[in-house]
Amino acid sequence: MPDRDPECVFCGIVAGEIPSTKLYEDEEILAFEDIHPVAPVHLLVIPKRHIPTADDVRDEEGDLLGRMFLTARSLARSAGIVEDGYRIVMNVNRGAGQLVFHIHFHVLGGRPLGKMG
Amino acid sequence: MPDRDPECVFCGIVAGEIPSTKLYEDEEILAFEDIHPVAPVHLLVIPKRHIPTADDVRDEEGDLLGRMFLTARSLARSAGIVEDGYRIVMNVNRGAGQLVFHIHFHVLGGRPLGKMG
Repeated sequence: MPDRDPECVFCGIVAGEIPSTKLYEDEEILAFEDIHPVAPVHLLVIPKRHIPTADDVRDEEGDLLGRMFLTARSLARSAGIVEDGYRIVMNVNRGAGQLVFHIHFHVLGGRPLGKMG
Repeated sequence: MPDRDPECVFCGIVAGEIPSTKLYEDEEILAFEDIHPVAPVHLLVIPKRHIPTADDVRDEEGDLLGRMFLTARSLARSAGIVEDGYRIVMNVNRGAGQLVFHIHFHVLGGRPLGKMG
């Protein structure tokens, strides 16, 4: 089982103790729908391991982040949002809007997207 | 030399034919300052190979995308924007605001960031 923070809501989702609408899962990655969507399509892709922020990603975890990116790309295809456009976002720390301190790629689409920040 | 699109401005930057303020470079990745910054810190991380959109990333290029992510993270540290927060963004196709069709991670920081789209 990956490292877990007992206070972390995303770790709770990984453990199956907090419900989610799962879209993809493998040994290291989980994707599910954001419960507070800001766009018609708003998905989250997370590592199962508890990594608080992008700044905590280890140098040897580039491969994991790459697979999270590929997962985001594939889910955008499945959601039918590629042609009209979508955005992959990772917020780092509170000043950027990070609310859950377990890293996640947001995948936003299904409407024209405004400024990126 | 990586694949190049002769019409692409980022390929021109990679080739050194279009000037840029380079921040990082290795065999496969280049990072430089955005010439139209939307935040006090606005950096771009690109692959040297011409990949038009995230949807064109090959399954075997996850590692490349992961290293691009690690580069973005490291440059955020160098720029001193970690504590106050920063955002990593990739826009995919015009509806999301993609202007240059050669994939790039935006790294935005140096001010509080608003909505992500």
